[in-house]
Parts: sequence; structure tokens; C-alpha cells
Amino acid sequence: MHRPIITLTTDFGLSGSYVAQMKGVILSINPRVHLVDVTHAVPPQDVRTAAVLLDQTIDAFPEGTIHLVVVDPGVGTDRPMIGAELAGHRFVAPDNGVLSLIAERYELRRCVLLTEGTFWRHPVSNTFHGRDVMGPVAAHWSLGRDLAEFGEPPGAPLVTLPMRQPQRMADGIEGEIIYVDSFGNLITNIDERLLEQMLPVEPAARNQVIVEAGSHRIEGIVRSYAERPAGALLALVGSSGRLEIAVNQGNAAELLQYPAAAGDRLPVRVLVPPTVPGDEHP
Amino acid sequence: MHRPIITLTTDFGLSGSYVAQMKGVILSINPRVHLVDVTHAVPPQDVRTAAVLLDQTIDAFPEGTIHLVVVDPGVGTDRPMIGAELAGHRFVAPDNGVLSLIAERYELRRCVLLTEGTFWRHPVSNTFHGRDVMGPVAAHWSLGRDLAEFGEPPGAPLVTLPMRQPQRMADGIEGEIIYVDSFGNLITNIDERLLEQMLPVEPAARNQVIVEAGSHRIEGIVRSYAERPAGALLALVGSSGRLEIAVNQGNAAELLQYPAAAGDRLPVRVLVPPTVPGDEHP
Amino acid sequence: MHRPIITLTTDFGLSGSYVAQMKGVILSINPRVHLVDVTHAVPPQDVRTAAVLLDQTIDAFPEGTIHLVVVDPGVGTDRPMIGAELAGHRFVAPDNGVLSLIAERYELRRCVLLTEGTFWRHPVSNTFHGRDVMGPVAAHWSLGRDLAEFGEPPGAPLVTLPMRQPQRMADGIEGEIIYVDSFGNLITNIDERLLEQMLPVEPAARNQVIVEAGSHRIEGIVRSYAERPAGALLALVGSSGRLEIAVNQGNAAELLQYPAAAGDRLPVRVLVPPTVPGDEHP
Repeated sequence: MHRPIITLTTDFGLSGSYVAQMKGVILSINPRVHLVDVTHAVPPQDVRTAAVLLDQTIDAFPEGTIHLVVVDPGVGTDRPMIGAELAGHRFVAPDNGVLSLIAERYELRRCVLLTEGTFWRHPVSNTFHGRDVMGPVAAHWSLGRDLAEFGEPPGAPLVTLPMRQPQRMADGIEGEIIYVDSFGNLITNIDERLLEQMLPVEPAARNQVIVEAGSHRIEGIVRSYAERPAGALLALVGSSGRLEIAVNQGNAAELLQYPAAAGDRLPVRVLVPPTVPGDEHP
Repeated sequence: MHRPIITLTTDFGLSGSYVAQMKGVILSINPRVHLVDVTHAVPPQDVRTAAVLLDQTIDAFPEGTIHLVVVDPGVGTDRPMIGAELAGHRFVAPDNGVLSLIAERYELRRCVLLTEGTFWRHPVSNTFHGRDVMGPVAAHWSLGRDLAEFGEPPGAPLVTLPMRQPQRMADGIEGEIIYVDSFGNLITNIDERLLEQMLPVEPAARNQVIVEAGSHRIEGIVRSYAERPAGALLALVGSSGRLEIAVNQGNAAELLQYPAAAGDRLPVRVLVPPTVPGDEHP
Repeated sequence: MHRPIITLTTDFGLSGSYVAQMKGVILSINPRVHLVDVTHAVPPQDVRTAAVLLDQTIDAFPEGTIHLVVVDPGVGTDRPMIGAELAGHRFVAPDNGVLSLIAERYELRRCVLLTEGTFWRHPVSNTFHGRDVMGPVAAHWSLGRDLAEFGEPPGAPLVTLPMRQPQRMADGIEGEIIYVDSFGNLITNIDERLLEQMLPVEPAARNQVIVEAGSHRIEGIVRSYAERPAGALLALVGSSGRLEIAVNQGNAAELLQYPAAAGDRLPVRVLVPPTVPGDEHP
């Protein structure tokens, strides 16, 4: 039987021992587990970024993978922690909206509140439920325990992050940047499916749409960085199926100076000129 | 039989190949080993930080885990390297005090100097004993070799870091910050055991003690970040059993501008007001 | 049978999900594989640094290890991707010169262009061939597939990076810095073999050569950092067999302010004074 996989997504950083403490507890319960770091560099308490990263990640992993997500600004409050099944994957996380983007795409199959303390590490620290509650639950789940053993179903729907949805406009779509990757690519909340609904079917026509990112105007949605010269701003659908603003062999976030401050918003508009063939049909 | 665990704590950073070289050598000797990074971002040559991180980490791992610690400013000198057993765990490290904090809590069971070159990788580099001496010894130890095979017992006690101990005062305790974690939490050398000895037994009384961190004055020791408003400075006993200064959903190191310079010290005092019930008893 | 090892060297950074996506795809194909990170902090698109790091790393790993290298400024262009065998190791990478340094030391045994799409993940993103092409090929290779199944031999030699070679001069060698490690050590393109050819055989004579790094003049090539006082600039042959400029318990890159700007070059000269015994013989 293959070793079960647990992925780890946290805001613990890589300079301390918190990640290792959580791994040690997991391995103490199930030494056969295969631990895979997604990232530990989520900005502190940034649930939204964690949600984007998790959404990007899961489809690359085999079904049944357990994703342990500990970005937990409410640790020590009465915010619930959950075990959940959706998208063919398993999740252990605080109920703080970190599953929001995945729940837009997939139906929630099963869910419990983590209330059954027999699976926890005791004494439970009030500041580190990743090590003492969620990590141990993920480890026991990987051993073949059933989700129902960890607690009761929640009485209310899961918390949903107030993510802004892209808006249809008369001449296109308006969305915004939701994530900046390590190359400085600016990733929007506009996905391929929405573009397909809106854009003319003719492939040539993608060259004629206009993408506005703040005050910058980009002609056409290309298929690869290399379709534009090095250093040029461009728009394409990236590897996670989202429209992104990039610079060939460069850094779009630096070029656009985004974000200028925390909470800065950068609207992105995809505009279909009236003359584009097929524009009327959708 | 379960795969043996070797944890890795170094100051090698994550941008180069040194960590991977050490892992490659270990896996060449024992392909079954489970390697777990504690951190590779110990500040260069900072044995004290490594000692704190190791002390935080070991209790989360199963007994018998091998902890390989390579923060080694003396590499290439005649400083000894050791294999040691304490706390139910196994350690391979330079004898430079990196085990100091663990040795305060646990008795040293066995120890040898790593002198038996047959287990080393040859030729031995004068600048990378982690790859050529300590990594190979850890790998051979994980294969079931006995500690005594790696060398002779030392003729002198292990090196101890000159860590300042917290001091009892007439009205409380004075300690200091020994580590800043990735969230900016300031962790002191005052542990839960000492607080229990000093503080009144009544739980309510913990709300009445005063914690001074530098020129900042904090009322009460709380049990979780959330007991104070977002942005407020607070004191609590953190997940490693030490008193820490934190900011709910914020960064205490930034707020207190600590450290202002390398070697900066920040005294922390826990003061018990004379009127607190039970104050006289210890 | 031991678990096959795949090492990963990328410029993806550690703050996003790209590394995890690639690992998830690999583990979906071969759950038994042992994944070892070399680094994901190669500067974006810096093929030269990736080449240096890979060259440093491979000898520490067992023969047969697969090294997956995704530093790929040409992704989405028609630049080929290759599978190659040399140095007893296996490599999957873009054909952009990342194997240059290894190919200077070892003969290329086998090589194919990755053209056989049946092993890829579909649909293939134009921006993430690490996840959709190279990762899957590495995973299938680790399962026992033969290299020839992944594509046809290339019709032309592999791309070679224009790496400057050290030059013999009348009174010594001139090379340059090719890499700065995480300790700030400055690593040159002058290796031990070349020094042995050039330098007098008498060990004592190494103390008499002069190493010039930019405008700095260093007397002697020492054997360990500790042969010079803390803070002193020194030259030694480092753990990868290359001459490096270092500071005992300090940071040579900071001391020499190198690099002052991107693309900055720092020549390093090893000069043998005419009076050194044995100087004439090579």
C-alpha cells in the first residue's frame, strides 16, 4: 500500500522550529506518512493567500491526499477547526475560509468539527493547534480512521472568505489581482472558463482583446511569455488556469509597483473591442 | 521496522546546495532514512539560536530520533564533534554548546567524540564537516551502529553556552529575550516551571501580575492571543513552555524594535504586586 | 529495492505552490520516489547559478539519482527539453546549458529530446513545463522506463553556457567569481586540479602565493577558515574543490561589496612569486 501523503501549508516561516514540531508530532503518530511542503511562507495570518495557494495545488496531487492548512489568526479563540472532504481530497484546517476557492469549484462532500480530544496531543497549547490538534488529526486520518471519529458535523455552513468575484461589464470583464507569485506574475480572479464564456471563439480574436491592469494597457492575450519581447508586459492564462499579467523574463509586480501598500487593489479589465468578429455571440 | 528519522538543523541557508550535499551523502549510506528539516536559516554561526530551536523541537519527535546539528563556526579547528544520547534522543553536532538548553533539562546518558574516521567521507573537506563527518556518522548510526563505534568518550564535560539564567528578585523574576520567532514573538528564558514556582496559585492572579519588556508594561499573563485586541501587546506562555511577548495578529519585534542591533539585550521582568492573593506563599 | 531519488533544482521560490505542484504530479506517477530539494532559490532565470549548484551537488548523491532542473527562461518557446545520462547520474532539464559544468568533467553517455507526449501531463501549460513535461518524465524514468522511450536523440550538441575559463598567465592564473554562497563565500572557476598543475608541489609554498580578488590582496592559500583571525579575508579550496575567497566567521561578499550590480565581474588572480621554491617545474 502506498504511503499516504500529507501536504503542509502554513504561515510559520522557515527560520524557526514550528514546521518541524508539527512534522515530528505527525511522524510520531504515523511514521509511514509522506510529508510534502506546499509553503510555509504564507504572509502571517493571510488566509486569502493560503486559499489561493491551496486552490492552485490540489489538482496536482493524487486523490485522497490530506492537505493540512495552518494559517490560523483565530488560534485560541472558539473558531472551529474542521476535517473536510471535497474535490476527492481531504482537508484539515481552521474554519476560516481557507477552503473558499476550492469550495467554489467542488461540492463539499463531508465535514466535521474537530471536537474529539482523544486524537489530540495533550496538553493542548492555546497558541499552536497545528501541532496539538490539526496535525495529530491529519496523522490519525492518514492511518485509516474515518472522518466521523474526529467530531460532529457542523451546524452551520463553512466560513467563506469575502472574495470579490469578477464582474461582467458591457464591453468585457472586470476582475482584480488576487496573488503575486515568486516571479512577480500578477494572478487575477478571472479564470479560463470565464474567458471562454466571454471571448469570441476565433483564436485569432484573443490577439485583439485589450487587457487593462491599472493604468497599463496590454494588447492581446498571448499563449506563452515568449510571444512578447523580453521585458514586455503581457497577459496570458497561466498554469493554474487564471489570467495573469506578466513580463517576459522580468517581474510584473516590480514594473507595476504592485502592491504599493498592504491591501492595495489592482483592477484588471478584459475589454473586447466592438469590431472583433464573433463578439456578439455569447 | 519504521524508517529512522534524522532531523537537520543548520545555518546553510536555502539558496545553495550545501543542505542537499549533506542529504545526498546521508542517503548514499542509508537510503531508508527519513530526513526532516528543522531549519537551515539559523543565522550564520549563531550557536545560541540553534540551541533554542533544537530545545523547542525534540519533544515533538519520537524517541530515538537522530538530530544532526551543523552550526559550526569552529569547523577546521580542533574543536571536537560529538555523538550523544540524552532526553531519549540522539544527537550529532560540534561540541560547541548547541546542546546546552537540552542538557539543562535532561541528563547526558552517553557521549563520544567522533574520532573513528572509517565512518567518514574521504577526503574530508576542512570546511564542510557536516557533509564529510557528522552527516555520515548520523547515517551510520541510523543503520544500527552503536554509538561507541564512532569514537571514545570525551575526557572533559561538554561545552556549555554562557546562557543567562533568569534571576529571582524581591518582587518577581528578571529574565531576557532569547529568541524572536518568525511571527515576531519574543521568547524569554523564563519557563512555565519557574512561573509556577513564583506565581500565586490562584489562576485569577495571573491577570494581576505585571510583565515589563524593556520600557513596555503589560498587565497580566493571558492564555491566548485572542484575550487581547488585535494589535495589543501581551504576555503569555507559548507553545514551547516559555513566557513570550507577543502582539495579537501583529509583530512584537517590530513594535518593540527589537533587536535594534546585533547583541541587543531586552530584559523582561515578571512582577507580582504585593496585594495579589497568595503572593506570600512560595 | 531502494526508493529512487529525484532531486529538484528550480527558481520557483519557496513562497508559492509551484514546487508542490511539481511534486504532486511526480508522486501521482511514482508514489515511492524520494524527493530531495537542492534549492528553489535560484535567482529567476539564472541558468548559470543553477549550473554551478548542480555541479556542486551531484557527487554527493548515489549513482542513478535523477536530477530534475527547472530553470527555464525559454519555457513556451521551441527550446528543447532533454533527458541525459552522464557522471553516472540522470538529468531532466531544458537544453539551456544548465549541464555545462558537469559536461566539462564527464562524458555525455546518452541523451534524448523529450518529444514523446504520452508521458506528459495534459493539457500542457505553456508556462509550466516543469509540472507538465519534465516532472512527469522524471517520475516515469524513476519507475524503470528506458531513456529512449522519452524521445529521439538530439541532432545537435547540447547547449553550452559561455562560461569563462581560467587563463594561464606568465606568473599565475586568472579566473573569476562564479557563485556567492549563503555565507558570502566567493567561489571561483579555479579548481583544485588546476591549482595542482600550476602550484609548486611543496605544501609550504601555498603559503607564499598571492591571491588577488579585485583590489584585495591575500597572502597564501590556507586549508581552513580558522588559520586566519575572525574577520580576516582569506583564500582556500572549498568543499566543492574550487578556490574561494572567504572571511573567517564573516561574509566576504559584504566585505568586498560584490556584486555591486547584476552582471558584475570580479577577477581573481593566483600569483606565484618568482622566488617560491619549485616554481619553475610545471
